[in-house]
Amino acid sequence: MEHVLAHIDAHLDESLKRLFALLRIRSISAQAAHAADCRHAAEWARDELAGMGFSARLSETTGLPGVIATHHEAGQAAPHVLFYGHYDVQPADPLALWHADPFDPQLVDGPRGRRIVGRGAVDDKGQVVSFFTAIRAHLAANGRLPVRLTILLEGEEECGSPSLKELLTNERDTLAADFVLVADTNMWDLDTPAITVSLRGLAAVELTIEAASRDLHSGLFGGIALNPIRVLTSILGDLHDAEGTITIPGFYDGILPLPAALSESWAGLGFDPAAFLGDVGLTTPAGEKDQTALAQIWARPTAEINGIYGGYQGDGSKTVIPAEATAKLTFRLVPGQEPAKIIEGFQAFVRDRLPPDARAKFRSGGGAPGFIVSLDAPFMHAARAALAAEFGRPAALIGGGGSIPVVEAFKTHLGLDTLLAGFGLDDDCIHSPNEKFEVACFHRGARAHARLLAAFGGQ
Amino acid sequence: MEHVLAHIDAHLDESLKRLFALLRIRSISAQAAHAADCRHAAEWARDELAGMGFSARLSETTGLPGVIATHHEAGQAAPHVLFYGHYDVQPADPLALWHADPFDPQLVDGPRGRRIVGRGAVDDKGQVVSFFTAIRAHLAANGRLPVRLTILLEGEEECGSPSLKELLTNERDTLAADFVLVADTNMWDLDTPAITVSLRGLAAVELTIEAASRDLHSGLFGGIALNPIRVLTSILGDLHDAEGTITIPGFYDGILPLPAALSESWAGLGFDPAAFLGDVGLTTPAGEKDQTALAQIWARPTAEINGIYGGYQGDGSKTVIPAEATAKLTFRLVPGQEPAKIIEGFQAFVRDRLPPDARAKFRSGGGAPGFIVSLDAPFMHAARAALAAEFGRPAALIGGGGSIPVVEAFKTHLGLDTLLAGFGLDDDCIHSPNEKFEVACFHRGARAHARLLAAFGGQ
Repeated sequence: MEHVLAHIDAHLDESLKRLFALLRIRSISAQAAHAADCRHAAEWARDELAGMGFSARLSETTGLPGVIATHHEAGQAAPHVLFYGHYDVQPADPLALWHADPFDPQLVDGPRGRRIVGRGAVDDKGQVVSFFTAIRAHLAANGRLPVRLTILLEGEEECGSPSLKELLTNERDTLAADFVLVADTNMWDLDTPAITVSLRGLAAVELTIEAASRDLHSGLFGGIALNPIRVLTSILGDLHDAEGTITIPGFYDGILPLPAALSESWAGLGFDPAAFLGDVGLTTPAGEKDQTALAQIWARPTAEINGIYGGYQGDGSKTVIPAEATAKLTFRLVPGQEPAKIIEGFQAFVRDRLPPDARAKFRSGGGAPGFIVSLDAPFMHAARAALAAEFGRPAALIGGGGSIPVVEAFKTHLGLDTLLAGFGLDDDCIHSPNEKFEVACFHRGARAHARLLAAFGGQ
Repeated sequence: MEHVLAHIDAHLDESLKRLFALLRIRSISAQAAHAADCRHAAEWARDELAGMGFSARLSETTGLPGVIATHHEAGQAAPHVLFYGHYDVQPADPLALWHADPFDPQLVDGPRGRRIVGRGAVDDKGQVVSFFTAIRAHLAANGRLPVRLTILLEGEEECGSPSLKELLTNERDTLAADFVLVADTNMWDLDTPAITVSLRGLAAVELTIEAASRDLHSGLFGGIALNPIRVLTSILGDLHDAEGTITIPGFYDGILPLPAALSESWAGLGFDPAAFLGDVGLTTPAGEKDQTALAQIWARPTAEINGIYGGYQGDGSKTVIPAEATAKLTFRLVPGQEPAKIIEGFQAFVRDRLPPDARAKFRSGGGAPGFIVSLDAPFMHAARAALAAEFGRPAALIGGGGSIPVVEAFKTHLGLDTLLAGFGLDDDCIHSPNEKFEVACFHRGARAHARLLAAFGGQ
């Protein structure tokens, strides 16, 4: 192992050069004008992996191609790891806010040493090349990899993954690994690695309350005619009680308790709600009063009104009683909650509160359940040991308040659990101008990946 | 009196011809292209009145001119009546829905006999010329009028009366009458005249709830961050209790009881809430449960949310927690309620319910108090007697759910009470295509006006 790590240390500048070559390719998947650039990035990755001895190819879809590469010389007895990353990047707009061309990557001195600045520096090209660096070191130092490794790079992660299902289905046999390693997440801080153990799911629904057959004048009808905005606000105003608890009957039914190891890890993170909220001008956690701030974003479900509209929205006032009013809601879900049952519960909650003459129309926008990785999974034990060895402290076991669709896709289409361990930082400005990746993170990420591969292989 | 009425009956066709001449003038005050037409209509009215012996002139304003005409030969001992009408009309759009050119008035056979069809047929040219017909008959039959009469015709009633205050202030001395007669309202039905005795006032306010300093992602902040839409719906959802009562402390304080004569008159009107609501697809009065349907629109105040918006309003869903959300409200007020106090009460109601991190911003849109005419006023006694004599049944004493700004303006700027007695019908399609005025209404309106003038004069 020491030879592997020494190889990474000795060849850091060369690894950065490889990353810079990839960063120069304008692989913006959301923009059709960059389709050829995207394909160019895929070919770059394919060639890079082929050069390391992988069997590598593009996997065509109706959209942009995936990259598939396998290195199975470790033999059938070795664990089979599927690494997932993506070669596409977000658009670079607004360009005026960048200090340099987003596709002319720079090494810039910062408070934590040198940093790589450019679109894709961390998301996800930097994380991908950091992993490639670990592979290259294993192969250079030992002539072999500790595991059977399959690599899947997607080309449409930044535009909603329209062809991911097709890609996973087409490549089902090739992708039949033991688990997935996704390197698209962050560390807790510069010195503390993190494994994202839980993610919240989502259920979306749109509610329209209809009343009169047309807009009415409140001079003529005000008082006697039902106002759908009043109905809507009355119903939605009932969604939470004074303790911040969601009042939909059965909403919390079946929620799995948080594993003790997780709640202990979270308690030790030193999360500072005042700082977290202060960044956006807030002071006070607004969720369930009997829950910690961290539980409110990672472990507890929500009922959120994301949009509302009805009646007159222009300047001044208009004395209208509108015919309808609409709200858009999403529920963040935690393991044990089923999206379809949550939506049904909400619909019943609304219907129970409808006064005469009010009709409720629902549009459901699908959903995904919450996700939690068992801490007992062998890859989890291996990962925690490898990260602790590299960083000299245990990995933070963290949650995530949102969904990562690819995790759900691997579970649904391939039946695979996912290990989320990446080496970005929260201030890396992903999707924003001057996206950056600390060289220290790139470097330690590569070393950590080298140790992870060894640990997965039982070494 | 019989000579006066006989003159009206004998000259009906001639009177209609005079009305048609005015209806042909495209005096659309909202459209600058018709400014000359508006002036033409004003001149037509001025000349018509001058031809009857009035001292008549235009009264210039920064907008369109008013018409002022006086006939004071009845002498200082006679009551001084100010008649108000307007010579401007609504735009005629959508033109495609008219059966004929809106400015080429037609006499058309209908279920209630002949009707006048054209823009302004009833609102307000038909009502004005009906009144002129009564004057002409008095002068022709008796050579004099029973009262001192001042006539004010406004030219901007259909575009918000921007110069009315200026006009009333400029002409304060000329307009110093005993009361105002406004003929811009409706009968109860074809056989039943009506006096509008009460009108509701209005107070308008816009409320914005602000929370975080920017829009937030609900994956990262959902649960811990205050959602201003949730705050807004929670507060507005509290505005009414289960009985339909408005819960703002002090909201109903000081409301004057409805005069017994009014509530008795309303009870006798045979108002059919099922038909009234059925026309717009509703079935059930939605106001205070212990109030009659008619009281809900005429005698009771309301809290109405006319518009609401915040967050995402496009297709599908977006997991945003917006930085702010807004609602526009109006309160319909009844006599005894002060608009400023109502707005203050609402502001306190909101502030009492603000959770930590929520800020409320208010924009108040002014207001007007409710209005009720004393049934003891001499002009009211005279009017009831005159209408009963013409129609063979008492006038319905009705309310109005909205405001008539000119009534408030006469009270504020001239200190005058207003008698609202007009001869339109609810199905006259004012402001809509194929506006009409039943010839029977025009004719009986003229006869009723003749009797009203006599009654005001004590005859």
